Amino acid sequence: MSEHAHQETVFTYGAPQLKFGLGASEEIGYDLSLTGAKRVLVVTDPGIAATGTPQRVAEQMARFDIRAEVFDQVHVEPTDASLQEAIDHARAHGPYDAYVAVGGGSSIDTAKAINLLMTNPGELMDYVNVPVGEGRDPVNPLKPLVAVPTTTGTGAESTTICVLDVLAQKVKTGISHARLRPTLAVVDPRLTLTQPAGVTASAGMDILCHALESWTAKPYAAYPRKQPEQRVPYCGANPVSDMWCSRALQLLSHAFRQAVHHGDDEDARYDMALAATFAGMGFGNAGVHLPHANAYPIAGQVKDFHPDDYAGDEPMVPHGMSVSLTAPEAFRFTFDTNPDRHVEAARMLDPDAPMTDDPADLLPTVLSRLMRDIALPNGLGAVGYSDADVDDLVTGTMKQQRLLSACPKEVTEDDAARVFRGSFEIW
Amino acid sequence: MSEHAHQETVFTYGAPQLKFGLGASEEIGYDLSLTGAKRVLVVTDPGIAATGTPQRVAEQMARFDIRAEVFDQVHVEPTDASLQEAIDHARAHGPYDAYVAVGGGSSIDTAKAINLLMTNPGELMDYVNVPVGEGRDPVNPLKPLVAVPTTTGTGAESTTICVLDVLAQKVKTGISHARLRPTLAVVDPRLTLTQPAGVTASAGMDILCHALESWTAKPYAAYPRKQPEQRVPYCGANPVSDMWCSRALQLLSHAFRQAVHHGDDEDARYDMALAATFAGMGFGNAGVHLPHANAYPIAGQVKDFHPDDYAGDEPMVPHGMSVSLTAPEAFRFTFDTNPDRHVEAARMLDPDAPMTDDPADLLPTVLSRLMRDIALPNGLGAVGYSDADVDDLVTGTMKQQRLLSACPKEVTEDDAARVFRGSFEIW
Repeated sequence: MSEHAHQETVFTYGAPQLKFGLGASEEIGYDLSLTGAKRVLVVTDPGIAATGTPQRVAEQMARFDIRAEVFDQVHVEPTDASLQEAIDHARAHGPYDAYVAVGGGSSIDTAKAINLLMTNPGELMDYVNVPVGEGRDPVNPLKPLVAVPTTTGTGAESTTICVLDVLAQKVKTGISHARLRPTLAVVDPRLTLTQPAGVTASAGMDILCHALESWTAKPYAAYPRKQPEQRVPYCGANPVSDMWCSRALQLLSHAFRQAVHHGDDEDARYDMALAATFAGMGFGNAGVHLPHANAYPIAGQVKDFHPDDYAGDEPMVPHGMSVSLTAPEAFRFTFDTNPDRHVEAARMLDPDAPMTDDPADLLPTVLSRLMRDIALPNGLGAVGYSDADVDDLVTGTMKQQRLLSACPKEVTEDDAARVFRGSFEIW
Repeated sequence: MSEHAHQETVFTYGAPQLKFGLGASEEIGYDLSLTGAKRVLVVTDPGIAATGTPQRVAEQMARFDIRAEVFDQVHVEPTDASLQEAIDHARAHGPYDAYVAVGGGSSIDTAKAINLLMTNPGELMDYVNVPVGEGRDPVNPLKPLVAVPTTTGTGAESTTICVLDVLAQKVKTGISHARLRPTLAVVDPRLTLTQPAGVTASAGMDILCHALESWTAKPYAAYPRKQPEQRVPYCGANPVSDMWCSRALQLLSHAFRQAVHHGDDEDARYDMALAATFAGMGFGNAGVHLPHANAYPIAGQVKDFHPDDYAGDEPMVPHGMSVSLTAPEAFRFTFDTNPDRHVEAARMLDPDAPMTDDPADLLPTVLSRLMRDIALPNGLGAVGYSDADVDDLVTGTMKQQRLLSACPKEVTEDDAARVFRGSFEIW
């Protein structure tokens, strides 16, 4: 622990409160009553609204003298336009004392954006990350936000970011500040029982990559020392994030395939929900890097791909799928920054996998075998990309400087191109 | 995960935000500025005040336009009288927007009590646990509280309790409510470098027993299902507390002896501070049981013992020491509730320990060897107790029903007597 004059010596950790287990989502009225809230907005998307869950959540609050309304027009994979519509709705019908988001990352992130613009001055683009927006810090605290994930793989219930597509610029970016973190995460595995296999597979790869990327991220002590005003929630790999992420990997090793192939197995759903929660609690403080950076153009530049088990007519590459498609190659690229960690991660994920001739191949091999088993598309080629697209994909990746800076080694355009090219066919 | 109609299915987890590392205590002014605080009370004891640290913490706040005062009359091992003195001081000199506690568990708990009575109606005994006090719940949120532990072993920075001796009744009891939890824990290993060997040993045993007791506590799912209004922070062993506690045990296995014998070893101090933080984050949600229940009368009924390395003329058994003295016997008693966990705990603490003839002896043996190595007193006899005291000690233990109910098996008076009798000489 010797201290170099200019090296970082401090890491930070923050997380929402957590209520986990079957039936946890039936206590939200009580939890909100402790905040003194009288008017609450429940934020969800049309698909989740159709299950009746958001309405049940709203109704339970009446018992505690809380008036709850439901906004069910969240756009899956939010855009600046969809967030503005949500903000406009809240401005017209509010104010609110608290928010409850019920759904996937899109619902949770939309609620974060509503909460931000209802408590702080200005407009959406004021807060969007530079260079797309102005990257301003919120000056006021936000209202309480209860995040109720219905998928196993968002982590959004634990994070300080809101991800959105800025349509005019065809770029996916984010709003990122500590004040955005939900106050309470309510994780009820019962809500995930109906998650179809394709969604479980994609969202599960999001969890998995959250955990792997945080585990391999540039360590907090490798950064120059920050002033307290400069500290951001993603401080690099640290003892606390390492703990959460490694436990998430261990849970996934037995629960992931089972939850995809036997979605009615409650134990597998419980462990997937626990893994998702743990990965969120971990990556929400360490950060993610190259696979997530690549995910932005892979999703943003989609051509004509329509994933199994997702509703809607628009072409899309689901977030978790877009993260996973370059993950094997990305971890082959980062192997030399910390061979032990990469091997250990592979062993946590698949304790029985035989060592590969080149240890750098172990984690990529374990990942590709898993991705094949859970029926993900076989690489970028299978979602409609070809070599002609590499330049545009690389351009999209290189815009994600915040994510790339968390990578344990520098990523050049050539490096990014090589990773994309190695990902057209995974197995 | 099959659900029995009346069994608990939900666990909860909450923790303060955390800032950890060398120099973390130099950023408190900035951290408080984010709360909008203008007047802050720094709470500490005379011994810590003499190091100059609380004054330095107060002075750094001026840079952020925050007026900070120091109250340095915390009584080590608080009493109702000492808490009342602190509350009266705050009432006379406040109000305050936030609090910073710098010191051991006594300073942190005193700050919790001040914060409670400055934000909520009534008096101290209204909030003290039944049957000693009235056990009322605070109705208002408390102000932000930054907890800066200077010992490695309190966990108070993470917990929802304030421990005190009620002098007239010669009983140690507590105030226990979720609202008491500090908002931010600032753990700076630099502040622990001067912690003397005797304090490191006792406080370290407190960490160790926190972790072991939470690891072996009755699991959350073994309780009957609660209504949300009935939920308390200590919900029993759960996947999150298990994770924190097992990591704490692993850290202690290499750092504890080293930190006691080579207090200038910065790496050992770092790991002890990390272990203390992790154990606090874990036990703050699971709970502790028999060793902590026994600690109350062992400390409360002290005769004439004066521990090495502790200032002051009054006889006292330091908290961590009082917890440790019956720990080996207590874990022999609980072994049959979960043999695997007890063996696993022993292995995490001492991977090289040879298996004992009776596996139930493994953890007690590992503990007693450690306690001897770090020069703790050899059992209750060495701190002034004899067989004649057993009835009074048992009476004191049986009053701690909240703690005993977390024990994985029922504890009768005979059981308690047997544990005390087996603890007069540990090695």
